[in-house]
Amino acid sequence: MDTHWYSSIHGDLEKVESIMNETVQSENPKLTEVCRYVLNSNGKRIRPAICILAFKACGGKDTSGAIKIGTALEIIHNATLVHDDINDQGELRRGAKAAYKQFSISRSIIAGDFLFVMGFQFVHSVSLEIVDYIIEAAKLMSAGEFDQKDFEHNTAASEEVYMKIIEGKTARLIESGAKAGALLADAKIETIDRVGEFAHNIGMAFQIIDDTLDIIGDEKVTGKRTGSDIMEGKPTLPIIFAMEDPKYGSRIKQIFEMEVPEWSDIAEAVDLIKKTDSIPRCKEKAKGIVNHAKVFLNDLDESEYKTALIEMADYIVSRDR
Amino acid sequence: MDTHWYSSIHGDLEKVESIMNETVQSENPKLTEVCRYVLNSNGKRIRPAICILAFKACGGKDTSGAIKIGTALEIIHNATLVHDDINDQGELRRGAKAAYKQFSISRSIIAGDFLFVMGFQFVHSVSLEIVDYIIEAAKLMSAGEFDQKDFEHNTAASEEVYMKIIEGKTARLIESGAKAGALLADAKIETIDRVGEFAHNIGMAFQIIDDTLDIIGDEKVTGKRTGSDIMEGKPTLPIIFAMEDPKYGSRIKQIFEMEVPEWSDIAEAVDLIKKTDSIPRCKEKAKGIVNHAKVFLNDLDESEYKTALIEMADYIVSRDR
Repeated sequence: MDTHWYSSIHGDLEKVESIMNETVQSENPKLTEVCRYVLNSNGKRIRPAICILAFKACGGKDTSGAIKIGTALEIIHNATLVHDDINDQGELRRGAKAAYKQFSISRSIIAGDFLFVMGFQFVHSVSLEIVDYIIEAAKLMSAGEFDQKDFEHNTAASEEVYMKIIEGKTARLIESGAKAGALLADAKIETIDRVGEFAHNIGMAFQIIDDTLDIIGDEKVTGKRTGSDIMEGKPTLPIIFAMEDPKYGSRIKQIFEMEVPEWSDIAEAVDLIKKTDSIPRCKEKAKGIVNHAKVFLNDLDESEYKTALIEMADYIVSRDR
Repeated sequence: MDTHWYSSIHGDLEKVESIMNETVQSENPKLTEVCRYVLNSNGKRIRPAICILAFKACGGKDTSGAIKIGTALEIIHNATLVHDDINDQGELRRGAKAAYKQFSISRSIIAGDFLFVMGFQFVHSVSLEIVDYIIEAAKLMSAGEFDQKDFEHNTAASEEVYMKIIEGKTARLIESGAKAGALLADAKIETIDRVGEFAHNIGMAFQIIDDTLDIIGDEKVTGKRTGSDIMEGKPTLPIIFAMEDPKYGSRIKQIFEMEVPEWSDIAEAVDLIKKTDSIPRCKEKAKGIVNHAKVFLNDLDESEYKTALIEMADYIVSRDR
């Protein structure tokens, strides 16, 4: 990744990679292989990045603790992705075969469990208080996934429902990473909370943009099939907004309600969604959230890391992968 | 359960039940429902029992910590069962529909993850040192599951392979529970280790007997279909021993190697295994392990709890469910 915000912590993120590769090991070599496959899959490393940037932007010096927490967050995030891919029957992840396709469902379920445990082991080795943050976030991730299931293929899903889903699914873990970074830098409690608010909002915007990429992204760049969310019946914001369209909404609803749509139906829905104002509305909403987020950094002293956090926020709404 | 060893800690185990019911809750009501279904499924509660008994046998008085750790172990154990049932395609668990059959695979994967997190939250609230025990045990559980997969439908599986599998899959978590109990009672390090050795051995014997029940158990009592392990290609000790039989071994091997056997094949294999000396050999081995285990309790002062641990050990090899 050659964005500027990334370069300021390049060395720290390299350490995250090497720690993941060196320490995620099991007595069983095949289990180690599955974990490596999952962890080396070209992820964006947003969670470690925001943890380390928050730490440095709050004046932290020795990054070893933040690097460990960042690593833990990335491992836990990947644990959930392995399980999500099974649940969603997603065949591709970041351009490569999903782990359960490359290995098997059962090996992927077990490897996900193992990664969870490894992630918690890392967090636990750094700070008890951070364990609390991350456990609460992890519990809300499960709740968010269930919320999403409750509204699968359900045209009654509203923007409010969606915001609650992505808060649990995405925003809370990112928030916990930023708060952990600020805490490790001995920031004041109000600063920790404000940095957490920033990250929470960034996480929400991140997921909204992720969900627009399911409609308008280039499959070669996103590494997954366009319209997968419609196929899986996920009530994402682009779909929810598009279903409100006076002209195309009813047909989009029809397709979204299909329990087992054909890919030709999905292609039709994707085309129709693009004809509505849904994507621009989503982008506008994400930009609004990001601008709101930046305000929470006002109290931080100026530094290249604060600048990097702001650039990261802008990257999140402008990215194409 | 009306065995004597159980009665000495009846009140404590009731508390485990009530804590599980009161605290395993999510923001999402359906997720809470799935967890309740899983946790209220008539389990034997061996893990909480051994933790609390070890605590009391080592002179511990205030059981609140041991109850919490016992609860955590039971929750983590159930998390793995939910995932195991998906992996093994086991349709029944303790006489009821497996969670993934009652709800769905994806809801069960997520609920298992949630239970893992809840379990670690409990452990973490009691003691850092115990977190280490249990994290190591949980990591070895995944390795044990992979070891088992490596030898699925594989007639090369040996007794040694099997012992390594069940050490990871079963014995280490039970060991960690007993060590946690002893630690909470402020036992000396040697005592903690010896109580751990006791429990480790009990865990091994427990799994051997569990695996014999797959062949000789009454479906109405075990709550799962006879021969399921052969169907799933699990290299259990009764199967490994039976494959050594000069008369019936080769046919049993043939059936064990089938990737997709019919239930009539399984019934044939079960009948043949019963004609070999496999089941008596397994029981003899389990009894030998249990007798060896009891020696590790020699240094403990006499008490009703030490007696209960010994009775529990005997129960484990004599049980029919």
